[in-house]
Amino acid sequence: MNKKKPIIMTMDGTTAAAHVSYAFTDVAAIFPITPSSPMAESVDEWAAHGRKNLFGQTVQVTEMQSEAGAAGAVHGSLAAGALTTTYTASQGLLLMIPNMYKIAGELLPAVFHVTARTLAAHALCIFGDHSDVMAARQTGFAMLASSSVQESMDLAAVAHLASIKGRVPFMHIFDGFRTSHEIQKIEAWDYEDLRDMLDMDALREFRNRALNPEHPVIRGTAQNPDIFFQAKEAASSYYQKLPQIVVDYMKEVSERTGRTYKPFDYVGDPNAEHVIVAMGSVCETIEETMNNNLSGEKIGLLKVRLYRPFVSEYFLDVLPKSVKKITVLDRTKEPGALGDPLFMDVKAVLFDQKDAPSVYGGRYGLGSKDTTPGMIVSIFDNMKQDMPKDHFTIGIEDDVMHTSLVYDNKISSEPEGTIACKFWGLGSDGTVGANKTAIKIIGDHTDMYAQGYFAYDSKKSGGVTISHLRFGKHPIKSTYLINRANYVACHNQQYVHQYDMLKDLREGGKFLLNTFWTPEELERQLPASMKREIAEKHIEFYIIDGFKYAREIGLGSRINMLMQSAFFKLTEVIPLDDAVKYLKQGIDKTYGKKGQKILDMNYAAVDAGLAHIVKVDVPASWATAEDVQAPSRNVPAFIEEVLVPMNRQEGDNIPVSKFVGIEDGAFPSGTSQYEKRGVAISIPVWNKEKCIQCNQCSFVCPHASIRPILLDEAEVASAPDAFETIQASGKGFENLKYRMQV
Amino acid sequence: MNKKKPIIMTMDGTTAAAHVSYAFTDVAAIFPITPSSPMAESVDEWAAHGRKNLFGQTVQVTEMQSEAGAAGAVHGSLAAGALTTTYTASQGLLLMIPNMYKIAGELLPAVFHVTARTLAAHALCIFGDHSDVMAARQTGFAMLASSSVQESMDLAAVAHLASIKGRVPFMHIFDGFRTSHEIQKIEAWDYEDLRDMLDMDALREFRNRALNPEHPVIRGTAQNPDIFFQAKEAASSYYQKLPQIVVDYMKEVSERTGRTYKPFDYVGDPNAEHVIVAMGSVCETIEETMNNNLSGEKIGLLKVRLYRPFVSEYFLDVLPKSVKKITVLDRTKEPGALGDPLFMDVKAVLFDQKDAPSVYGGRYGLGSKDTTPGMIVSIFDNMKQDMPKDHFTIGIEDDVMHTSLVYDNKISSEPEGTIACKFWGLGSDGTVGANKTAIKIIGDHTDMYAQGYFAYDSKKSGGVTISHLRFGKHPIKSTYLINRANYVACHNQQYVHQYDMLKDLREGGKFLLNTFWTPEELERQLPASMKREIAEKHIEFYIIDGFKYAREIGLGSRINMLMQSAFFKLTEVIPLDDAVKYLKQGIDKTYGKKGQKILDMNYAAVDAGLAHIVKVDVPASWATAEDVQAPSRNVPAFIEEVLVPMNRQEGDNIPVSKFVGIEDGAFPSGTSQYEKRGVAISIPVWNKEKCIQCNQCSFVCPHASIRPILLDEAEVASAPDAFETIQASGKGFENLKYRMQV
Repeated sequence: MNKKKPIIMTMDGTTAAAHVSYAFTDVAAIFPITPSSPMAESVDEWAAHGRKNLFGQTVQVTEMQSEAGAAGAVHGSLAAGALTTTYTASQGLLLMIPNMYKIAGELLPAVFHVTARTLAAHALCIFGDHSDVMAARQTGFAMLASSSVQESMDLAAVAHLASIKGRVPFMHIFDGFRTSHEIQKIEAWDYEDLRDMLDMDALREFRNRALNPEHPVIRGTAQNPDIFFQAKEAASSYYQKLPQIVVDYMKEVSERTGRTYKPFDYVGDPNAEHVIVAMGSVCETIEETMNNNLSGEKIGLLKVRLYRPFVSEYFLDVLPKSVKKITVLDRTKEPGALGDPLFMDVKAVLFDQKDAPSVYGGRYGLGSKDTTPGMIVSIFDNMKQDMPKDHFTIGIEDDVMHTSLVYDNKISSEPEGTIACKFWGLGSDGTVGANKTAIKIIGDHTDMYAQGYFAYDSKKSGGVTISHLRFGKHPIKSTYLINRANYVACHNQQYVHQYDMLKDLREGGKFLLNTFWTPEELERQLPASMKREIAEKHIEFYIIDGFKYAREIGLGSRINMLMQSAFFKLTEVIPLDDAVKYLKQGIDKTYGKKGQKILDMNYAAVDAGLAHIVKVDVPASWATAEDVQAPSRNVPAFIEEVLVPMNRQEGDNIPVSKFVGIEDGAFPSGTSQYEKRGVAISIPVWNKEKCIQCNQCSFVCPHASIRPILLDEAEVASAPDAFETIQASGKGFENLKYRMQV
Repeated sequence: MNKKKPIIMTMDGTTAAAHVSYAFTDVAAIFPITPSSPMAESVDEWAAHGRKNLFGQTVQVTEMQSEAGAAGAVHGSLAAGALTTTYTASQGLLLMIPNMYKIAGELLPAVFHVTARTLAAHALCIFGDHSDVMAARQTGFAMLASSSVQESMDLAAVAHLASIKGRVPFMHIFDGFRTSHEIQKIEAWDYEDLRDMLDMDALREFRNRALNPEHPVIRGTAQNPDIFFQAKEAASSYYQKLPQIVVDYMKEVSERTGRTYKPFDYVGDPNAEHVIVAMGSVCETIEETMNNNLSGEKIGLLKVRLYRPFVSEYFLDVLPKSVKKITVLDRTKEPGALGDPLFMDVKAVLFDQKDAPSVYGGRYGLGSKDTTPGMIVSIFDNMKQDMPKDHFTIGIEDDVMHTSLVYDNKISSEPEGTIACKFWGLGSDGTVGANKTAIKIIGDHTDMYAQGYFAYDSKKSGGVTISHLRFGKHPIKSTYLINRANYVACHNQQYVHQYDMLKDLREGGKFLLNTFWTPEELERQLPASMKREIAEKHIEFYIIDGFKYAREIGLGSRINMLMQSAFFKLTEVIPLDDAVKYLKQGIDKTYGKKGQKILDMNYAAVDAGLAHIVKVDVPASWATAEDVQAPSRNVPAFIEEVLVPMNRQEGDNIPVSKFVGIEDGAFPSGTSQYEKRGVAISIPVWNKEKCIQCNQCSFVCPHASIRPILLDEAEVASAPDAFETIQASGKGFENLKYRMQV
């Protein structure tokens, strides 16, 4: 087959999977759960705009009352002969399990696209790992795992196609947030190609099997001990045939795209002695680390794609015969088991092999814990030991059970020429949106690859957001947070007191601070540690008073456009003239209908971003700046050792021992008293001239920090001068003064 | 410790587990599901009667809206410091999974008593296997499996005690129906002993950790990637310590009872070469078969009790070093996995062992498929082969994937002297209740062991019931249906045309048929195959017209008392005089408050059962009785090959191939037209003298088989003579005749 001219698009993993799923879907029964929601939202939006699936119809999207209802609706809709899809994760998937047994038992083709997320246990966590999908591995669903945004588009197609042909439902799995919300420049499927590959006979048979009064059958009967076992075994042949169907579709996808897929894909030295077996987005980092940090070593990576049915022969086919040691990485924890699921599977595969390699297990990435090149190096190093650590953890310091491997988090493995940029913003300040635009500009207008990942804390609006952007000439497989940035921008000057934003900025990198401090005021305002870091790492330090110019232009506090042009100027990712052109084209597209005034304001912001960057001359004295000892606060150990590091974005460094005594997830209450974030750009002041003493400001203050006060003469007399009051109004208040305490 | 005088009781597995659970329970949050319901019902009933738990309080029982709600209530109640218990199975357990993660994650002590049952997939099935508990094995719950009624009492105690001390919640598992509903004579725990063993300090700490406004903490927080992983690992120490806690309590239970329990128990030759690893009630049959059919062979059985945490060391400690081949039996099917769960665990344990034995996997007992001594022999035989079959099935004929082992179902392994009795009754005819009374009489008044198991079909009332009773001087470990009975009673004469009731009756056994046929009429009525079987096996054949004498006495159709005394007379399980005495004592106890008349009627029934048994002289001609060829019916293949055998209670023999084409569980509709059961003892007749033409009989007939008819003169004229009619009543009907067609 000839490879067609690819459709290049910049999108995240949810959009990629949703794009393919839409093609094969008659009915989508949904219930939103993080991080799967954007898939259902995209499908819903496309349906609202009348987009057509492969059969020329608009997808019917129905939101149910919970994931349990969604799964029930999927089951019913399939039984009625409609190709039905859903999107879920975590607890949502758990609620679907009962229906998953039914759907698989009745051999109904369906795909559940799952953005793998952890499960609430000692605490809730909305972030990614494989706990959810592993909790459903026994349902009879096939499981196909994608490790990147591109794969979540390609393998979504394999899942739908193979399910229709093989009559076994699929979970199509990709990592929550890391893949679901990572933005990448990828090749998108043309629906014509998807239609070409669809087995129309199988589809017709599926539709003919639908419950239909014209040729009725009974489904969902109750069976007794006499026949239940035999009837259950009768379905085995479908699971026996399914893997070959998957292989065939993978081959066809490979031919059409040039991207090779097999149930298990091996990369690395064909004569490798040490091999990692893994599934999901970590494969990208492992592969990148092997290529860029460990080249020449006798190592390899076996990527698990078709996890269920798990076919030993396919696994053994790609595993080099030379392998002596294997480390299996699991991204879930099953307390009380001999090992986590993938580890158990690999041991079972190799059990009967002569001279089988040794097998070690490691756990990583729970709750979206970042897995970095340094950790990968450490995992390969572990295999070099005579007695490698088994059942290890990686990515944490386990000073209780001593399971953790030591690693160097400074190792980076991005290919030469990658430009890595980090932006510290305040939730809902527009930074993330602006960065998504930047990626789109670079992705759409150049042949560069682009990647964006946005780390939020769970405070969302008002919390810190850290945008991680990479650009480069090579495909970007860095599925980990940026730890060696070329450029760091801080959009909120208060952060200089709270976060170590420069530790991930490389020697000689650029740092842009949005601040109303003048270069002279910086001397007084910046903490000594930041000064030293700027000096020691020879950082090019820039400031811009974004808020001032945004206000002047009339944009209020919306500094995003201005910061974006500053970013293009300082990073030179693309020629500046082009950047300005694309930015202004983007403005035309976004605000074209809002009138010339709005357009002009935004054009002006672009120009202001270029014009008002000030380069700071770093005084030699900064290299030896001395910390002012902060007055020591007498706070409980938990605050000092857990909460304060967490608030500093340094919670990753908290060792396991700090959770001893609260293993059940209990946290002390009343901790917000120690958490003064001080991130507000402006603070309210009582305007006594305008106050009508209605007290509504106090009534609506969620923190009860605005309080009206009535004072008698003696109290007024003893108050300090700055404590201003006005005459209280109201009957009986004639002798009292009033103040709104802010 | 001195073993106290045991409290001997006759009860089923649910009562045994409920008895212990009540002691340790403050709150029971329940939702009934077969086969777990009797546990919650017992606890509810005991609470209603004011029974006290170990803390002198009545258990608070709350029924929720579903199992999901019950699990949520358990979680909340535990968080409030109340020892909380629930009882469930199958889909019910699936609905509890989300909360199970929370309960385990928060290290809350709880016991879920689970009567393991299969899960609805291609079809619903209310019967037993391990699909449900295996679907929850990753939740962080400990899993402790009992294989008998006695164990479900003993290990229930271990589960509660270890959970309180170790802070890890437990699933206490025993096989649905086979153990849950089997009646056995066992030793019951005195609550004083349970209180002795309880760790009061641990209990106090649990209660102190309860959510309490006096010393508030936050639970159920949301954690981010920074600390989730570390906090999760912090709980590992509890799982590390738990197994020793279980071992200690098992030791203490062993000392107090004389019954030995370990996480893994090995029985058999200490130098065994072939070993079965299994969990649940099948262990009893395996042990019995090894003792009685395979003694002297180098074989053994490793019983899995503590399935989670699974501790390799304990497993290896009890496994003989001499073992060359292991067969792991799993009672669940996980399509697409390399093997079923226990098989995977055993491979993982042995992976790193030098000269590890070969490991083979087999699946058995899905949906309560009976697993018999013949099958156990076959499994051991398989290991004797040079190339044993792996991933086999046992108990079915798999002529599609050819996984099944061939077995001899005629092998029996009950110890010498066991009396096995089988009763064919009609659902709700009193047979099952009477048999339970018989077991109780024998259990309570003699030192004999007794076992009862009651096989219903899912028609329940109106369907066939088969009671399986065993009595003997030795403990009865036969956890399979009776296949070599000493005595068979048929309480419904219509069954002679439908069921082969004699195939399981041994040579020279006794057969009692309740019938209104005279000995002479038998010649005409009995099918030839039954005659031949009676003659060939030298069966002692008795009849009794139970309905006639019951009616004469005034008991209507209640023949159970009469059939029971007949049973005691014919089987001589205990001296007849004693039996009569106990039966009459039982009558006094049951009907004492209902007046002398009721007592006298039941006394009379006992006497009638003894007096009116007629021994049939079997004519020599029966040995060569010839079948009258039934007129061949032109029915669809599915009816002939699946439905007819099922209705004959021969569905176990239907091979897998008969389900090819309907692997998705689809059944043809309209099959009841082929299923004429003819089990009614009496049929209604239209009484034209009394008919007032109200037509209500027709209105309420659920089968629409009673229909009123109006006929004109021509129709009356052409009707046969027996087609009686009366004058139709009602305006305009003057020229019509009326008939109620029954």
